[in-house]
Amino acid sequence: RTLRIGLIPGDGIGREVIPAGRRVLEALPSSLNLKFSFVDLDAGFDTFKQTGVALPEKTVETLKKECDGALFGAVSSPTTATKGYSSPIVALRKRLDLYANVRPVKTVRTAKSPVDLVIVRENTEDLYVKEERTYEGPNGKVAEAIKRISEKASFRIAAMAGEIALRRQRVRDSGVDSIHSKPLVTITHKSNVLSQTDGLFRETARRALAQSQYQSVGVEEQIVDSMVYKLFRQPSAYDVIVAPNLYGDILSDGAAALVGSLGLVPSANVGDGFAIGEPCHGSAPDIQGQGIANPIATLRSVGLMLEFLGEEQAAAKIYAAVDGNLEDGKLLSPDMGGSAKTDEVVEDILRRL
Amino acid sequence: RTLRIGLIPGDGIGREVIPAGRRVLEALPSSLNLKFSFVDLDAGFDTFKQTGVALPEKTVETLKKECDGALFGAVSSPTTATKGYSSPIVALRKRLDLYANVRPVKTVRTAKSPVDLVIVRENTEDLYVKEERTYEGPNGKVAEAIKRISEKASFRIAAMAGEIALRRQRVRDSGVDSIHSKPLVTITHKSNVLSQTDGLFRETARRALAQSQYQSVGVEEQIVDSMVYKLFRQPSAYDVIVAPNLYGDILSDGAAALVGSLGLVPSANVGDGFAIGEPCHGSAPDIQGQGIANPIATLRSVGLMLEFLGEEQAAAKIYAAVDGNLEDGKLLSPDMGGSAKTDEVVEDILRRL
Ligand SMILES: CC(C)[C@H](C(=O)O)[C@@H](O)C(=O)O
Ligand SMILES: CC(C)[C@H](C(=O)O)[C@@H](O)C(=O)O
Repeated sequence: RTLRIGLIPGDGIGREVIPAGRRVLEALPSSLNLKFSFVDLDAGFDTFKQTGVALPEKTVETLKKECDGALFGAVSSPTTATKGYSSPIVALRKRLDLYANVRPVKTVRTAKSPVDLVIVRENTEDLYVKEERTYEGPNGKVAEAIKRISEKASFRIAAMAGEIALRRQRVRDSGVDSIHSKPLVTITHKSNVLSQTDGLFRETARRALAQSQYQSVGVEEQIVDSMVYKLFRQPSAYDVIVAPNLYGDILSDGAAALVGSLGLVPSANVGDGFAIGEPCHGSAPDIQGQGIANPIATLRSVGLMLEFLGEEQAAAKIYAAVDGNLEDGKLLSPDMGGSAKTDEVVEDILRRL
Repeated sequence: RTLRIGLIPGDGIGREVIPAGRRVLEALPSSLNLKFSFVDLDAGFDTFKQTGVALPEKTVETLKKECDGALFGAVSSPTTATKGYSSPIVALRKRLDLYANVRPVKTVRTAKSPVDLVIVRENTEDLYVKEERTYEGPNGKVAEAIKRISEKASFRIAAMAGEIALRRQRVRDSGVDSIHSKPLVTITHKSNVLSQTDGLFRETARRALAQSQYQSVGVEEQIVDSMVYKLFRQPSAYDVIVAPNLYGDILSDGAAALVGSLGLVPSANVGDGFAIGEPCHGSAPDIQGQGIANPIATLRSVGLMLEFLGEEQAAAKIYAAVDGNLEDGKLLSPDMGGSAKTDEVVEDILRRL
């Protein structure tokens, strides 16, 4: 099987980590019978500055017509209000209907306080519909934004969370050791204030997870503020957390803090038959160009992308090589307290493939 | 000076901690020349079940007409959608225009990783306007909520953050030791997605803090997801964090996790000339009636209320007595790893007044 992968480095360190993602794909053992071809695509704030558009149509069209999956690096946000600019990754998620953002957060086995959870974030609606308006009120300007929650999107994201919980349990059943013994989905919301929107999310998610195929999956709820508290007090209690878009955004950065560096945390934007791997970190202008960005979030995102394209074996190889590097602890990038360059970390991981 | 204080225990352990708040007021040294009178007021889910109304008009009117300040315990949220029920504390904040929710989070001096920050949360708008509607879409139900951000509310909350930063600096200058040496306000928002609403918050906050009286206050920004990350990775870097309502809600629970227990974290709902002290914890149905609730969040909330009513000296006495109890570490409630009852903790603190 040959997979065609779009490479969208974006801005800043995105340009340093996406090449690392390509290298790991090219280095996968031939016994897997997987080949890759690549196409370079533009998006980002630099693209916006050059062309007036942050997400060129050509990028969207090429992904739709030619590609099986993609890797997205990072985008810089303008530091002041910039007319006409709007985040290309948010747009891409909507244009390709990549309705789930999947963010596993996992410590290595040797960690003192182990964490092994995945945040399943709805990726197309909530405040991210970006329907805003501004008007003059009696006491100055007033701005409003719409938070939209639909039954359809809530149902499918909760079902996705159920599937992921089952898949994680299958991996555990196959003998991989884990801190969890049973699958659990935690529904996060703020329905004590937003009884209609978050109320709809909560009830629909409950209904989706009450389907017979998820019978073995435990289901519980947390109000989002209390979820953040619990995430830090007893992170090992959580397996799969499902949340509307914005809470998912916040929770996944919070969860990233548990493993020590955003540079470790991958994500995949997943739709039906398509996935974009994307490291959770940003474009990191403070370290760009120095060759010291941590490539691990991207390499794990490559693994995630492959998982959602049905290549679980290839994904497992990448995860194991990354874990090997981390457990060994000799070649770590500066965010991890080491002094290795991006390339040195990548090469160590390739050797372990 | 005699202050009249409304006591609103609410539900669950609210009924166990609000009496503790009253006791500490009554025990303040007479040298302060402060007297208190009290009036008991109803609100909460139990009140709703008995009367059909969670926040009786009488409570609002008594607070408005008779009281200088109040203490609010906690409310239980219904576990299923309950027609007609809506949170009385959210309503109270709006009815009395208590536009700031101030939540200091501070470890004792002896803590290994010291934290000393305060979250200043806008308390009247954002998604808390609770303007929601539900309609049938082509693929099932769709619900929408309004997130409203006004220039007026953003300006006054940022100015309040500036005042608090200056006041904290004054306390430090008076010789109280602290991990901070300069005042800093961090503006939290998500304007990279919500350019109009959060963009308005960000720009207005910047403008408020650019006023000459805040010249000595450092100002910086954090996107909310990254703020949660930073809060956990380097909490000692933050002094005053100002945020719109919902982010402030989430951040303050997150910050509470840093000090080990929600049972330690106070808040005050502050308007012009009025303040309601409110512990950050909920009604905790799991421990209610056992007499083991941690009273410290409430006692510190009493201190905060007094601070905002201009009684800084009385407040300082309470804070010091609480710190004494914590540093001593012998009489702690179960959430802190101890085995003391609520009353034992209260008595230890009263002895230290
Ligand atoms: C850059 C930003 C628009 C984005 C988001 O909010 O989704 C980022 O925080 C993320 O989590 O991928
Ligand atoms: C109970 C709930 C409505 C409330 C809020 O969201 O404000 C609580 O979480 C708080 O922080 O005081």
